[in-house]
Amino acid sequence: MMTGENRVMKHQDLRKFQSSSFQIKSSCAIRMLTAKLQLADAELSLKLGRNVLVHTSGRIKTVESILAKCRKKGYEPTYENAMEKINDIIGVRAVCSFEDDVYRMAEILYTHKDLKIIKKKDYIKEPKSSGYRSLHLIVELPIYFQRETQWVRAEIQLRTPAMDFWAGVDHQLRYKKGKKEAILIGEELKQYSQAVAELDQKMVELRKRIDAI
Amino acid sequence: MMTGENRVMKHQDLRKFQSSSFQIKSSCAIRMLTAKLQLADAELSLKLGRNVLVHTSGRIKTVESILAKCRKKGYEPTYENAMEKINDIIGVRAVCSFEDDVYRMAEILYTHKDLKIIKKKDYIKEPKSSGYRSLHLIVELPIYFQRETQWVRAEIQLRTPAMDFWAGVDHQLRYKKGKKEAILIGEELKQYSQAVAELDQKMVELRKRIDAI
Amino acid sequence: MMTGENRVMKHQDLRKFQSSSFQIKSSCAIRMLTAKLQLADAELSLKLGRNVLVHTSGRIKTVESILAKCRKKGYEPTYENAMEKINDIIGVRAVCSFEDDVYRMAEILYTHKDLKIIKKKDYIKEPKSSGYRSLHLIVELPIYFQRETQWVRAEIQLRTPAMDFWAGVDHQLRYKKGKKEAILIGEELKQYSQAVAELDQKMVELRKRIDAI
Amino acid sequence: MMTGENRVMKHQDLRKFQSSSFQIKSSCAIRMLTAKLQLADAELSLKLGRNVLVHTSGRIKTVESILAKCRKKGYEPTYENAMEKINDIIGVRAVCSFEDDVYRMAEILYTHKDLKIIKKKDYIKEPKSSGYRSLHLIVELPIYFQRETQWVRAEIQLRTPAMDFWAGVDHQLRYKKGKKEAILIGEELKQYSQAVAELDQKMVELRKRIDAI
Repeated sequence: MMTGENRVMKHQDLRKFQSSSFQIKSSCAIRMLTAKLQLADAELSLKLGRNVLVHTSGRIKTVESILAKCRKKGYEPTYENAMEKINDIIGVRAVCSFEDDVYRMAEILYTHKDLKIIKKKDYIKEPKSSGYRSLHLIVELPIYFQRETQWVRAEIQLRTPAMDFWAGVDHQLRYKKGKKEAILIGEELKQYSQAVAELDQKMVELRKRIDAI
Repeated sequence: MMTGENRVMKHQDLRKFQSSSFQIKSSCAIRMLTAKLQLADAELSLKLGRNVLVHTSGRIKTVESILAKCRKKGYEPTYENAMEKINDIIGVRAVCSFEDDVYRMAEILYTHKDLKIIKKKDYIKEPKSSGYRSLHLIVELPIYFQRETQWVRAEIQLRTPAMDFWAGVDHQLRYKKGKKEAILIGEELKQYSQAVAELDQKMVELRKRIDAI
Repeated sequence: MMTGENRVMKHQDLRKFQSSSFQIKSSCAIRMLTAKLQLADAELSLKLGRNVLVHTSGRIKTVESILAKCRKKGYEPTYENAMEKINDIIGVRAVCSFEDDVYRMAEILYTHKDLKIIKKKDYIKEPKSSGYRSLHLIVELPIYFQRETQWVRAEIQLRTPAMDFWAGVDHQLRYKKGKKEAILIGEELKQYSQAVAELDQKMVELRKRIDAI
Repeated sequence: MMTGENRVMKHQDLRKFQSSSFQIKSSCAIRMLTAKLQLADAELSLKLGRNVLVHTSGRIKTVESILAKCRKKGYEPTYENAMEKINDIIGVRAVCSFEDDVYRMAEILYTHKDLKIIKKKDYIKEPKSSGYRSLHLIVELPIYFQRETQWVRAEIQLRTPAMDFWAGVDHQLRYKKGKKEAILIGEELKQYSQAVAELDQKMVELRKRIDAI
């Protein structure tokens, strides 16, 4: 049962998220992961003769969002709980040309010895019940800060432009959650997820046939 | 009829394209157009409560590419001909969230008084015979260089992620042109262009319904 | 005489500075001015065979700073007053290799027809009483925003690395103003300003002799 | 004695420097080192309440430059020799506010466990005979490329704006080396190096007194 105190964050926990230290480490982690994605792209483009990375972006979750996720998962909203239980406080997204490129990128990240891959969640092979598709890697990377090696956790979302497009609409729907019309739209959106998946697969097939010419 | 001399570029024309002056003006034009797209995005996100610009990129056509285009269009491959007749020597691409956003972005660029819109080619309403869809604006913008106002021409390609995705496959097919298998793939790709267009329209429709909740 | 109401900013004025519109226009102005400085640098490096621009930076004045400046100048701290009377709400700094490069950069900016140079303050020829040296241009540039042409004012500070170095120390001293020790340090710093100026001149002289070899 | 074969680089060695692999690893190393410098700056600004890093830049040595350095050091100009004996093929420069900041930055880089500091050359304490002053760190950092951990060597140059300014003039003089007038200017420049060093020390002293107020 939810009690009053875990609906809001205590002042001391809030301050830790808003601290410069937290912001510095998070920004550095985003910069490092982006550099790793660019390196992997360069390696793949050398091999395949074409670019694989369409674009990247990174974001740090807002305190409101962290609080909401703690609540949803049933944890007391402390700094320690959030850092331990929430994997996507730091998020980096890599949009890759084709569905097989998504796996190629992931495979290369596995060869980076300074990156601990904590978990792989393959929502392409097994989409979420909403229809959401993407490959998620929960990783930890070392940030050398204030004389310590701090392992910072982040979520890397790998997806195609089509998956990204679909997820953008789905994301907007989240804000209207609970409304009856939102449920109806959610169901339709789920069907398009299937259409998007088929498009992704057909595009890979066509590209392979082009490669083979 | 093609004669020997317009298959290759004369040394003096080649040098003009490779000159620092040409590179400086072109890079500056790309930077200025990108800034305009970001400003338009900021204006729209203020109005719509969501970002419109997914990503941008810019490129300067290679001399080989310019030469090939002169040849294809039947012009003698001189610097002056290329600058006058080829509109996409400088190209900037803006991938926008939804099909209606593409038109919103274009509309804002029309309000920029330092941008001459020379031509609008709406390959969304009327796709190319290959199935290619995008909105092209041929523009001229003033670059203040060496005490002169130099009007530099560029092509702005506005498209959705789905159009961009399709165009990426189509682009790879160009390199294999002429081969029999390439023709077959081209025909299939054209059919998917229709599927992509329907997806774009359905996504706009869903987003509008979400907005209305 | 100062009255209570102009020590703080009214809520409606504060909101205008914090508005997204203000932030968007200001960021765009910084981006545009930086692009102009890079273009001028490219033009000069073509002519001189060396780079002129060492680095650039831009900043938007904080509301506290704007308020303090209104107070110091004796204006009521309204949005309109600030926009009209304070020239450096938007500031762009260009550090140039040598003292004569500072004037070369300024000269090129004068040739940009979309830049209104409102005022030139030559604190190199006539340093401030503190010893501060830099060339300031107060400019206005058009930002095309929300269907209007909005002329946005900004201050461009052009200086050498030596001037920048000196100004950095001086800036830190500002925060301790009024203290007795600060006055003593201020006097010493003023003497070093003279030493820095001589260094700047001797370096230009040496570079000219090198150029002439 | 120099023989014909080591005046020019063999085609196969040249190709290795021009290869995409070499360019990719080098660019990645520059990006990673720059991120490390920004992280160190953030850490210091948290501690000192002011920024320490004025600007950074990175460059990959040209093949001509590598060849000249091999020649000067008396090595046969092979790819392997260059990679083993030349430390500054990849160079990153960090201009720091004050002389003591230069050492603070270096100290933090020593705490990064993924950075091997191969050598420290303190040309501030013991300037080169030319008068050149800077702190050089020869480092190696791991780049995860093509399924291997490749240790890439780079030189980090840490200096104040005043040292950077002086070095800029000295660098231009290098191109005119050997000429009689160049020798005379070199001697004068050496004397100014002393003046620049004194300025650096006085500025640190003033800043410390300001900090103490």
